[in-house]
Amino acid sequence: MTSSNVRIKLVRTIPSGSPALEDFVVEAVDTPSESSLEPNQVLIRSLYFSCDPYFRGRLSGTKDSYVSSFIPGNPLEGRGIGTVEASTSPKFIKGDMVTSAAFKWEKYFISSDGALTKIPSNTAGISPADYLGVLGMPSFTAYVGLVFLCKAQPGETILVSAASGAVGQMVVQLAKARGLRVIGAAGSDDKVDFVKSLGADVVFNYKTCGSLQETVKKAAPQGIDIYFDNVGGELLDVALSSMRFFGRIAACGMISQYNATPETAYHIKNLGNVVTKKVTIYGYIISDYFAKPVYKEFIDEVSSKFKKGDIQYRLDEVFGIENAPQALLDLFEGKNFGKRVIKIADIA
Amino acid sequence: MTSSNVRIKLVRTIPSGSPALEDFVVEAVDTPSESSLEPNQVLIRSLYFSCDPYFRGRLSGTKDSYVSSFIPGNPLEGRGIGTVEASTSPKFIKGDMVTSAAFKWEKYFISSDGALTKIPSNTAGISPADYLGVLGMPSFTAYVGLVFLCKAQPGETILVSAASGAVGQMVVQLAKARGLRVIGAAGSDDKVDFVKSLGADVVFNYKTCGSLQETVKKAAPQGIDIYFDNVGGELLDVALSSMRFFGRIAACGMISQYNATPETAYHIKNLGNVVTKKVTIYGYIISDYFAKPVYKEFIDEVSSKFKKGDIQYRLDEVFGIENAPQALLDLFEGKNFGKRVIKIADIA
Repeated sequence: MTSSNVRIKLVRTIPSGSPALEDFVVEAVDTPSESSLEPNQVLIRSLYFSCDPYFRGRLSGTKDSYVSSFIPGNPLEGRGIGTVEASTSPKFIKGDMVTSAAFKWEKYFISSDGALTKIPSNTAGISPADYLGVLGMPSFTAYVGLVFLCKAQPGETILVSAASGAVGQMVVQLAKARGLRVIGAAGSDDKVDFVKSLGADVVFNYKTCGSLQETVKKAAPQGIDIYFDNVGGELLDVALSSMRFFGRIAACGMISQYNATPETAYHIKNLGNVVTKKVTIYGYIISDYFAKPVYKEFIDEVSSKFKKGDIQYRLDEVFGIENAPQALLDLFEGKNFGKRVIKIADIA
Repeated sequence: MTSSNVRIKLVRTIPSGSPALEDFVVEAVDTPSESSLEPNQVLIRSLYFSCDPYFRGRLSGTKDSYVSSFIPGNPLEGRGIGTVEASTSPKFIKGDMVTSAAFKWEKYFISSDGALTKIPSNTAGISPADYLGVLGMPSFTAYVGLVFLCKAQPGETILVSAASGAVGQMVVQLAKARGLRVIGAAGSDDKVDFVKSLGADVVFNYKTCGSLQETVKKAAPQGIDIYFDNVGGELLDVALSSMRFFGRIAACGMISQYNATPETAYHIKNLGNVVTKKVTIYGYIISDYFAKPVYKEFIDEVSSKFKKGDIQYRLDEVFGIENAPQALLDLFEGKNFGKRVIKIADIA
């Protein structure tokens, strides 16, 4: 055993409001030894952790959710990429690259082999982090919402919130490739420029544009057919009031409300438009779709386009496990620029 | 020409707030003569007018809707049943019973033949008013929402708002016939008793039950799979907070908000649940479904069940065209009990 291991532990649950640095502890712990492995276990060296908005729900302590809450005293966990250091499982050998949705936020940890999936470590043009990025969960979220649920059609107009984010940047590119007119909202001028570089037709900075209602009206005088919603709150309300007949809303997250308290929560005024404009709102959680045929369609289309250079994907890498808590807090403030991952170690 | 004709004319549009009796005029006008018919026209004697919540939108003067606004100075119009008094159309002869979505609110009026559909006048067990009731538009609205959109499954739990109303009473019975557990909300103790008589498992008076949240929680401790929403407002919000995973909401109307002003409108707090509970909200307008195969399925199933006595349908008949404006205003206050129709004349 060595003491080079580090983990991120939750101190307390945060039912509402903004989490703070003191809610987490970065602590040195022993590295699990190879000899401590029980049968069918794998010792993993972490390379990347995925850092995602849905973590907010897991910090809240609620039992009434689609995903289990983090437990105070335990390390955080989520999607990650790592390499096998040692294995008592017939399925994995030292050097394999693996992913799982239950990566502990530790430099080294032990996993049962059943939780792990092997991923190719030598595909030309695809790096380990890409399995959290362009081929990762948020990117698949974009695909399912746009293609599978909303059934985007050429000539339609789509509004994409958080358009430079992990989900939004993929929505923008998939929508353009399908012949839609794309309007993006982003939270800084740099992000606006990036979304324009992805091919969006109109992009606005929602923090500085003035009236959101007027801005959307000007960008889409005829209204919008699809609203891809990551953020909830006022922009969702404006989108509701801007829907065309038979509009669809993909609702995969409402990050603007995750840290809201009962006092600061935004209340929706325009939901009546779902009736008068015959709108369907699809709330969904991406974990329900990995076992469906649409997952293979996504991997095929997106990996092919990515290798050909027809899709870009912006990762926002934060380096070092010690910086993981701040990286997560910043995500809730929109300080990431692209899909946030935390790099723990180099592959070699 | 005689002066026995009467019509209901709109005086002014009412963009928001509650319409009043002074917004309508009951006026005596000349009865159109048979000799004034142009080719392919039909002189109709009105028997029944349908009186529906969606009229509120048509009173508002908005141009941004799925249905045209009423025009001040013109008579109201909507779904009706009548008999042919005279015809220059090869499709209709004197004595035919006809329906149309563009019945003028007049005792006698002229229609182009293209707007009219003949209906059987002698089907055993089906009266003319039943074409506005058990086989009418609100009843079809129930069928589409429950069966076609929400795909109700045996063993699921459904909450039905306005459960004694034109749509709700049909939802309750169709849901029970499909093996769902049915919870109904209604606005008076008489209505509660009626909904219970239709087979609903739990029915509450939303005006006197105290906390809606607690009442729904007690009625459905495990939550609800389907919410059939006619009313919007607070009950929709409570339903959103009570949805189970993969819940569905059929949103065909929000009558509680139709007379709301910006100051009195209810704002929705719990829309975030569509994401966390993976809920789909289907906003729809029934006129889009008459040309689909589901219309024939509805007519076949419901007329068969009705003739066998397996479905009841409560009509709320108001007598006399002079009372039509008050009948409409009362509808917005929930003073109807069942599907409101205005009886203009006997068939013979």
